[in-house]
Amino acid sequence: MMRQHPDREILEKLLPYIRKYQELASKHGINDIFQDNGGKLLQVLLITGLRVLPGREGNDARDAEGNEYELKSVNSLLTKSFSTHYHLNPKIIDKYRQVDWIFAVYEGIEIQAIYRLIPQDLEFYFSKWEKKWHDDGGKDVNNPKIPLKFVMKQGELIYGRE
Amino acid sequence: MMRQHPDREILEKLLPYIRKYQELASKHGINDIFQDNGGKLLQVLLITGLRVLPGREGNDARDAEGNEYELKSVNSLLTKSFSTHYHLNPKIIDKYRQVDWIFAVYEGIEIQAIYRLIPQDLEFYFSKWEKKWHDDGGKDVNNPKIPLKFVMKQGELIYGRE
Repeated sequence: MMRQHPDREILEKLLPYIRKYQELASKHGINDIFQDNGGKLLQVLLITGLRVLPGREGNDARDAEGNEYELKSVNSLLTKSFSTHYHLNPKIIDKYRQVDWIFAVYEGIEIQAIYRLIPQDLEFYFSKWEKKWHDDGGKDVNNPKIPLKFVMKQGELIYGRE
Repeated sequence: MMRQHPDREILEKLLPYIRKYQELASKHGINDIFQDNGGKLLQVLLITGLRVLPGREGNDARDAEGNEYELKSVNSLLTKSFSTHYHLNPKIIDKYRQVDWIFAVYEGIEIQAIYRLIPQDLEFYFSKWEKKWHDDGGKDVNNPKIPLKFVMKQGELIYGRE
């Protein structure tokens, strides 16, 4: 049968701080720190000053001047590339071409670096995905990746270390 | 251009506690509290005394006697049903029939209740999904849901309030 673990006491003592973290996240438009890297997104937003667009699909953010950004993050201990979209199509790729991209690199939950890429930096991938979509007869491309190495090479480091 | 948000100070003061929370999570087999409800799973594990099975796919957990469990969680503020599997097939359904299920109900990041269901409680859904798979000519069933209402009605409340 089930019986609580003695570490639950440690957990209970940390929960008030976790709640404060969630309150801060909620203030910045993040409903749930424990899903979809919400707790990490909060860090990226506060470091960059970007705001998320409530009610918008995807990882959209905006700066104080109203410019939109695509936000991506990776835990470099687990994987060496960024996910994009599980049902990628030319309409989404067109949207990708209209914004700068912010790539946040984590080791576990610790932010290591943030890179900024302009659409031209990523055109190699946009064209490749678009070609694949056409070659496959208009079938959505399933989450094509952008390698971290590529981002580090092409991108402007705006926070942290290489 | 980008400029940090004044709330970053609040964030920095909370980070040491977040790190402690992640340390505790890591000790219990959770690599990343900010993904896949990791920070919530930690609570469920410490309340129930269940342990996660490292390196196993899915939400498998085991109790002190070695019994395996399927773990599911939902944020009831966002959705009223539990996700199952994005590529469900008879092999996975067979596995589902061999274990008890633990359903954790959250409001945001606050745990409200934990229910336990035995396979017989869920057979209605298992059969339905299996039939759909066969009717669709052996096509994976895409993430069929289990309603929270059903879980609350059929399940044994093992933590929290109805």
